[in-house]
Amino acid sequence: MMRTHTCNELRKENQGEHVILCGWLDSIRIQSKMAFIDLRDRYGTTQVFVPQNLLDSVRDLTKESVIKVPGVVKVKPKGNPKLDTGDIEVSAEKIELLNKASELPISLDEKIESTEENRMKYRYIDLRRPRMQNNLKLRHKVTKAARDFLDKEGFLEIETPFLAKSTPEGARDYLVPSRVNKKKFYALPQSPQLFKQLLMISGYDKYFQIVRCFRDEDLRSDRQPEFTQIDLEMSFVEQQDLIELNERLMKHLFKECLGVDVKIPFEKMTYREAFEKYKTDKPDLRKSPEEFKFLWVTDFPMFEFSDEDKKWKAAHHPFTMPTSTDFKNPKLVGSKAYDLVLNGWEVGGGSIRIHDPELQLSVLETLGLSKKEAEEKFGFLLSALKHGAPPHGGIAFGLDRLVALMAREECARHDA
Amino acid sequence: MMRTHTCNELRKENQGEHVILCGWLDSIRIQSKMAFIDLRDRYGTTQVFVPQNLLDSVRDLTKESVIKVPGVVKVKPKGNPKLDTGDIEVSAEKIELLNKASELPISLDEKIESTEENRMKYRYIDLRRPRMQNNLKLRHKVTKAARDFLDKEGFLEIETPFLAKSTPEGARDYLVPSRVNKKKFYALPQSPQLFKQLLMISGYDKYFQIVRCFRDEDLRSDRQPEFTQIDLEMSFVEQQDLIELNERLMKHLFKECLGVDVKIPFEKMTYREAFEKYKTDKPDLRKSPEEFKFLWVTDFPMFEFSDEDKKWKAAHHPFTMPTSTDFKNPKLVGSKAYDLVLNGWEVGGGSIRIHDPELQLSVLETLGLSKKEAEEKFGFLLSALKHGAPPHGGIAFGLDRLVALMAREECARHDA
Repeated sequence: MMRTHTCNELRKENQGEHVILCGWLDSIRIQSKMAFIDLRDRYGTTQVFVPQNLLDSVRDLTKESVIKVPGVVKVKPKGNPKLDTGDIEVSAEKIELLNKASELPISLDEKIESTEENRMKYRYIDLRRPRMQNNLKLRHKVTKAARDFLDKEGFLEIETPFLAKSTPEGARDYLVPSRVNKKKFYALPQSPQLFKQLLMISGYDKYFQIVRCFRDEDLRSDRQPEFTQIDLEMSFVEQQDLIELNERLMKHLFKECLGVDVKIPFEKMTYREAFEKYKTDKPDLRKSPEEFKFLWVTDFPMFEFSDEDKKWKAAHHPFTMPTSTDFKNPKLVGSKAYDLVLNGWEVGGGSIRIHDPELQLSVLETLGLSKKEAEEKFGFLLSALKHGAPPHGGIAFGLDRLVALMAREECARHDA
Repeated sequence: MMRTHTCNELRKENQGEHVILCGWLDSIRIQSKMAFIDLRDRYGTTQVFVPQNLLDSVRDLTKESVIKVPGVVKVKPKGNPKLDTGDIEVSAEKIELLNKASELPISLDEKIESTEENRMKYRYIDLRRPRMQNNLKLRHKVTKAARDFLDKEGFLEIETPFLAKSTPEGARDYLVPSRVNKKKFYALPQSPQLFKQLLMISGYDKYFQIVRCFRDEDLRSDRQPEFTQIDLEMSFVEQQDLIELNERLMKHLFKECLGVDVKIPFEKMTYREAFEKYKTDKPDLRKSPEEFKFLWVTDFPMFEFSDEDKKWKAAHHPFTMPTSTDFKNPKLVGSKAYDLVLNGWEVGGGSIRIHDPELQLSVLETLGLSKKEAEEKFGFLLSALKHGAPPHGGIAFGLDRLVALMAREECARHDA
């Protein structure tokens, strides 16, 4: 055992104990007959008292070096209220250098800005900053709380393949050349959309996965080539069932991770209403800046005309349930698709899916695929829909963006 | 709400209730004046009584079709002890066909073998088999229990990138061409080894991740191109700390998921002992076939000579802590690497890592890299080791193999 306690564990009650601490040298103040070190780890900071006989062993210690300190816990006459361990200090019996730190290429001080390039290059130092540590802790908490909630609700977490066949989802795929089959490629999934639908057809009833997704898009501050979704799907449900489950999920996450009570049900608004009133499909309805304001936007159109490609595209995706089946005038067809908006950001989107093979084929044809092309690209889905497909629907949340909003960060790309 | 109950919920106490069930038609027996349907979902099976006036609506129903059945719960005069719901049946008021199933291309009957090719092609049907459902449920349980245990122990689950720089780990990488930087490639990670080491250097202290890994290997029954690891890393630990933590993790998993008590500490044996006594580094020490027998194999050699490449290679990986530093005779150098063996299968492997930049460089040089090549390939690691690197170590478990062994399956590839 290398240490007996972390740097946030010792209290008055430990007075007189022989302990061993390990951590980073956060700061050192050398006086003529003694020195003081602030020793830091993930959990907190403890003051180390260095007596005169050890002064020589600390003179050359650099900031951020890693040291091991056996010593005795002493209660300080005057505590330091800024530290959880502020009532005590560890009087060192020895200072052992475990790893000597050269001068840091970027500062740990949040106030000293570094270029994004340097933050990325020295990511292992950037991630020592308290803000980054808090963001990663929050991210861990959110995923843990989401899993606990969904497990309790009877969802099974099921992993889906990453090396798979390409299916179109509106962005470019990352392709992985196959070594075994020359000139063939895997595509990294943009989402597990069709896998989770197949799992419903396999009878799993309630699926979820916290899963990496890949989109080869040009970088913007709120887009990244790989990102993580809380992805779920349920069988034998209608839109309102999904909305209610996900409101409870959000309520649970905010309560467990932030101690914040969000009121459910959330407000709802149709896509048309949102556009007429706010000129956007993700209006920010906050009345105060401190608020977390959720909004469901529903009744999205099924199809959108792409001026660029001169053809109809799926507004959500081609597996979304339309609200009518007269596809001669695609503009008029609505869909059972819904987005969850938080403070003006889309944090989740989902839909009821098509579970009828004929209807699925009609939608694909409306999108310009011939019957033959539809069979080639989606034959496995059309076949699955002919072998016992339950009505089903689901949603996916952008975890990075959700955590960034919960942490009140502006940018989801590097900080969460 | 499409259904009021699942197919494993109704009991005597529900007598007289109006309910709605949904599920798959598992079987149907049509008699002259009535019919009986076994209605199945993930949770179980409920018998549906079809009265004479509804007979016409069920005559054409095919097996595995999805139906919705509103009806009334009736207690049966003689219960069926084989079903949890065997005391009741639902007397149908209507039978609504939600999805008509064509004849299945592969059988759900476990006794009727299908070719592996067909099982893969019709994976959505294969996954309906009870054995497959149980395996996926067990897998969910194991990952949930692992996360619960590690969360309680203070580990943070932190996701690491998938689109990354290639680092050598003994197998071929899958490469992903970059669209933005022509002729440049990402490599899908064979493991998050260096990322987790960097997280230790960032001060995260206890990291874990249940994470997909990729190796472009030729397929064998116990290898797959993508697989999942329970991956963890800790700072300020010695080998024995890691061994004890992971014994408690295994104990927890077997207790929570199988109700099996495994005794800790596990037996230990050095690599040399294992080879001398059993001619393998993963001996199967079971005394009875029903037993789960864990064994730690320790003290692996640091280097192995590759006859094929005519040079020394790392037996574990190049970041493993050697037990001596005289690299002139690599054969004699041991390492702080350990494997966990279960019933003769390697289920996990790990090591204490190098946290000294000079030592890391010497190891890389012993593996044939020049100082310049070492800097080019591992400059980021060598630099990180110069900026406050704590002693650290970790382990990774092959989740698929572990679950397969827990499920007493022979092959990890398709069934878990």
